[in-house]
Amino acid sequence: MYDVIIIGAGVAGMTAAIYARRAGKSVLVFETMVCGGQIVNTTRIENWPGDFGVSGTGLTKKIFKQMEELGAEIKYETVMDVEKYKDEGFVIKTEETEYLAKTVILAVGTEDRKMELKREEELLGRGISYCATCDGALFEGKAVAVVGGGNTAFYDALYLADIAAQVYVVHRRDKFRGDAALVKKVRAKENVEFVLGFVPEEILGKEKVSGLKLKPSGLVKGIEGPRELNVEGIFVAVGKKPATDKFKKLVELDENGYIVAGENCTTSCHGIFVAGDCRTKTLRQLVTAASDGAMAASEAVQYLSNVI
Amino acid sequence: MYDVIIIGAGVAGMTAAIYARRAGKSVLVFETMVCGGQIVNTTRIENWPGDFGVSGTGLTKKIFKQMEELGAEIKYETVMDVEKYKDEGFVIKTEETEYLAKTVILAVGTEDRKMELKREEELLGRGISYCATCDGALFEGKAVAVVGGGNTAFYDALYLADIAAQVYVVHRRDKFRGDAALVKKVRAKENVEFVLGFVPEEILGKEKVSGLKLKPSGLVKGIEGPRELNVEGIFVAVGKKPATDKFKKLVELDENGYIVAGENCTTSCHGIFVAGDCRTKTLRQLVTAASDGAMAASEAVQYLSNVI
Repeated sequence: MYDVIIIGAGVAGMTAAIYARRAGKSVLVFETMVCGGQIVNTTRIENWPGDFGVSGTGLTKKIFKQMEELGAEIKYETVMDVEKYKDEGFVIKTEETEYLAKTVILAVGTEDRKMELKREEELLGRGISYCATCDGALFEGKAVAVVGGGNTAFYDALYLADIAAQVYVVHRRDKFRGDAALVKKVRAKENVEFVLGFVPEEILGKEKVSGLKLKPSGLVKGIEGPRELNVEGIFVAVGKKPATDKFKKLVELDENGYIVAGENCTTSCHGIFVAGDCRTKTLRQLVTAASDGAMAASEAVQYLSNVI
Repeated sequence: MYDVIIIGAGVAGMTAAIYARRAGKSVLVFETMVCGGQIVNTTRIENWPGDFGVSGTGLTKKIFKQMEELGAEIKYETVMDVEKYKDEGFVIKTEETEYLAKTVILAVGTEDRKMELKREEELLGRGISYCATCDGALFEGKAVAVVGGGNTAFYDALYLADIAAQVYVVHRRDKFRGDAALVKKVRAKENVEFVLGFVPEEILGKEKVSGLKLKPSGLVKGIEGPRELNVEGIFVAVGKKPATDKFKKLVELDENGYIVAGENCTTSCHGIFVAGDCRTKTLRQLVTAASDGAMAASEAVQYLSNVI
């Protein structure tokens, strides 16, 4: 039986592992895909303190190495379920087998939200992408659209502007959630056009994407439609959805699926903690995820001492 | 008039500066002594994600450079007072002159209370520590002393009992300010010994700590001394003091002087935010300070946009 099992090896989960190991606890971390979490798709990070301009993989590889050196165990298995185990802790069921833990830290992060258009899934990899860093290179010299108005959309637009011939930023409003400095950088790119007050209506193209049909969102005055963009790539950056469905019997979720917990990262289930983007919080950043990891591990350590 | 004035250039304040600058705001940071905060006294940091074993000055110099490159201004002046300025913002009075800001982030940190023994400062990082979570892992299999009788001392003792071979809890009284339930947990640890009615008299060891000489405090009957503990680590847990006195007219403080604020880092005064150790919180770590900096700056930016 492990002292702490951590589900998810993003920055939150890995930081939790670092803290729990330094407190002398046995730690097992589960990861389905690759360690690092969503940030691995980011080519340049400017707001991680002390490592200006580091890439997502650059940073997370260093955190992974640190976690390993401190003695955390890592298994690449998909966790299917977590249940209470007698009065002693929890049983963690993966696709392969089962594990026991006295405490569990949920650090499962979020998934990409979809445009919810017909054939969006069908054309994934044939023009539809949720990751500019992963797929941008396929659109060298071509025209692409980025859908969204947050930081991710603008990071994507910047990245794509250096590869594609033309980038359209499609956003339903004429104001942005993204940082002003970042928006300014995007505006300075000659091959980026802002298409504001529109929402995607239809993906065009049979075998692969050949265009994106837009309609007015109704949120910006004076916009009339429809409009068609001749693009071969559509980069969807409209937000994230927490990957918490399988834990809803165990811990309380809010209306958007986030695990309900305050700053102390304790959930509605005694012995289960949460860290990172999948928690109810207002600011989802690398550094707030790392903070959660430290907090969740510290609370788990206190729980293990029967203090809380 | 600056958009954001930040008082204190520890990790919290510098991270706040990074976030506010990336949001396109004008930023001035005040620091009395050297940038970096308390961590500059630490020779090896193991729990900062991604920079395993970095020194306190090593890490904070990188964060400082990042903050400067992003265009934050820094002034080495001591802030004496902050007052409301008409309905427009705040006036920040330093020993030299006055400055105006629309928002202020207080990131003034805390000071550790000292044992007030000879060579206590000299042996910092060579056996003397004020933070078990930070430095406990360095004393695996060794004997350590915890000095203090409050909750922090007992949390430290519990934490260290899982790492060190032997833990002595040194307290001048035979009663404790710490919670009874917590004290009970510590008493149940086989490798923890309570050394009550004593106060530290002398730190032993030349290059590094090799022991702690104690004398009776005079507060407990029947205690005769002196006594010597063979320890390589001395964890001083006699309290922290937030440097918040000069702001008590402006923002609500708790009974220990911490600025009252939740995870969102907003204080009782609209337009004033708080970040880092000087805030009411349970876990004072580098990474939670950085998280606060990001949060306080984000809230300040929203305040400046009249969003909140």
